[in-house]
Amino acid sequence: MSSEPLDRHALGQALTRLANASASDLMHSPRRAPAASVARRIGLTGAPGAGKSTLAGHLALHRAPGRRLGILAIDPSSPRSGGAILGDRIRMDELQGMSELYIRSIGSRSTSDGLSDNLPEMLDLMDAFGFDEVLLETVGVGQVEYAARVQVDTLVLVLLPESGDVVQAMKAGIMEMADIFVINKADLPGAQKMATDIQRIASLARHEEGAWRPSVLLASSSKPASIAALSDEIERHQAWLGLGERRTVLLQQRARYRLRRLIERRAAEVVAGQDPSFFEAPMAEQLDLALRQISQTR
Amino acid sequence: MSSEPLDRHALGQALTRLANASASDLMHSPRRAPAASVARRIGLTGAPGAGKSTLAGHLALHRAPGRRLGILAIDPSSPRSGGAILGDRIRMDELQGMSELYIRSIGSRSTSDGLSDNLPEMLDLMDAFGFDEVLLETVGVGQVEYAARVQVDTLVLVLLPESGDVVQAMKAGIMEMADIFVINKADLPGAQKMATDIQRIASLARHEEGAWRPSVLLASSSKPASIAALSDEIERHQAWLGLGERRTVLLQQRARYRLRRLIERRAAEVVAGQDPSFFEAPMAEQLDLALRQISQTR
Repeated sequence: MSSEPLDRHALGQALTRLANASASDLMHSPRRAPAASVARRIGLTGAPGAGKSTLAGHLALHRAPGRRLGILAIDPSSPRSGGAILGDRIRMDELQGMSELYIRSIGSRSTSDGLSDNLPEMLDLMDAFGFDEVLLETVGVGQVEYAARVQVDTLVLVLLPESGDVVQAMKAGIMEMADIFVINKADLPGAQKMATDIQRIASLARHEEGAWRPSVLLASSSKPASIAALSDEIERHQAWLGLGERRTVLLQQRARYRLRRLIERRAAEVVAGQDPSFFEAPMAEQLDLALRQISQTR
Repeated sequence: MSSEPLDRHALGQALTRLANASASDLMHSPRRAPAASVARRIGLTGAPGAGKSTLAGHLALHRAPGRRLGILAIDPSSPRSGGAILGDRIRMDELQGMSELYIRSIGSRSTSDGLSDNLPEMLDLMDAFGFDEVLLETVGVGQVEYAARVQVDTLVLVLLPESGDVVQAMKAGIMEMADIFVINKADLPGAQKMATDIQRIASLARHEEGAWRPSVLLASSSKPASIAALSDEIERHQAWLGLGERRTVLLQQRARYRLRRLIERRAAEVVAGQDPSFFEAPMAEQLDLALRQISQTR
């Protein structure tokens, strides 16, 4: 944890600036010195109504002592603030004395991957502000998880019993992506069967020596024992990742994804900015001109 | 229709070359002279099992006389050939004398939009080979339709009664995209109610003066009357599009999408080709280098 107190105001302003930045803005922004340390990044994803917010809130309270911890909640519609973002996560009175806990909602409207476009930069900002850990809460099935997978070290998939979530998750290839499965509201019927199913499916995909064996937790997001078990499981996965090659591979994927996304977004901006007459030129000329403009805006 | 006979062998080879071309290959390929005329492009999309192939086959037979007509069937797994691609579309004996009808299956595996990466170039090739009309058959809900929407003039969405397709289509925003709705296997229960629902939903989105009013057809893909009705509806939409501003807007969107996709794909190739050490450089340097490489490969 950073020895200086968290400057919430500065962080909030910087996140807002980033949330509204275009790809061109990002390319122009002065290069920040690499952060002294990098926060652990834990993703929580799942369909709407699976109880991710409550789980994230309780998990944050459980893990916050002794740590600077942030929750970034990606909101498919628009960002919420104040009580709306706290919502069912945490009661106001539980925040007493949690001076190192920071919660922020970020809108994701109109981004093609369902996350905020500048999420990589926002996560870097959390590093720069000395966070030890960031919980990234995302909604959705499919593309969102892939994009989220690349941004985090540990991905937790939250499912509801008998919800059809498993079928959706299998179709979208998420069963292979998640590190930890949480079956929430586990007192609902079908939870135990779902756990058995997931255990079987998830282990099918990973039979290499030394592969991570994803765990399946039956949980109730309001029960302290569930939260403690999830927290322990996250620690176990972080320890498995270690600081060696596994983490290096992860950081590489993240770097590639980020560079690609930035070029893609800048290309979209440049293409959108052309007059109709631009497209009357032969394709090769269009391409030359567009690439030159992408380079020039840097 | 072109006065020269269709060179099926040359077309087949050229399509195969395009299907396997990388973005870099495309950028290097010599600029083809613009085709003398442009084929009408009709998209048929819908969930698997909705009966698109049968419908496309019968529609092609109905519309082929006096036209050079092609079917490009995008296959989510891998391309099929020979009898497999004909499949339930057309019986071999129905092809007698159809010397201007060309059917081709194209694999879409691993593309991010669910279509073939080089589809815009393939469609241009059909123009170069003097086609009057191309039916583009695509499978899926969501991204596929968006990508398909841009490539075609007239988009036909094929649905099954009581299939949940409407809910899926609404979620994915396809109700606003389709020009013609076909409720296939209309003798199944729920067809009439579905038609009423779609009519209501689809008209909600389009209340501007002169907007296209999407039609909802109850069909059975084996009934000649259904095929004739769909064919007439396509004619009506093509006439509405005309040759003026509506078509111009469409061609613009197509040009923008194509340029963006090509840059995106080339960016992905360049980023994937970097050594791990590349990503140790500051982001700004990575960006400069990557953009330079994208430009150089042209």
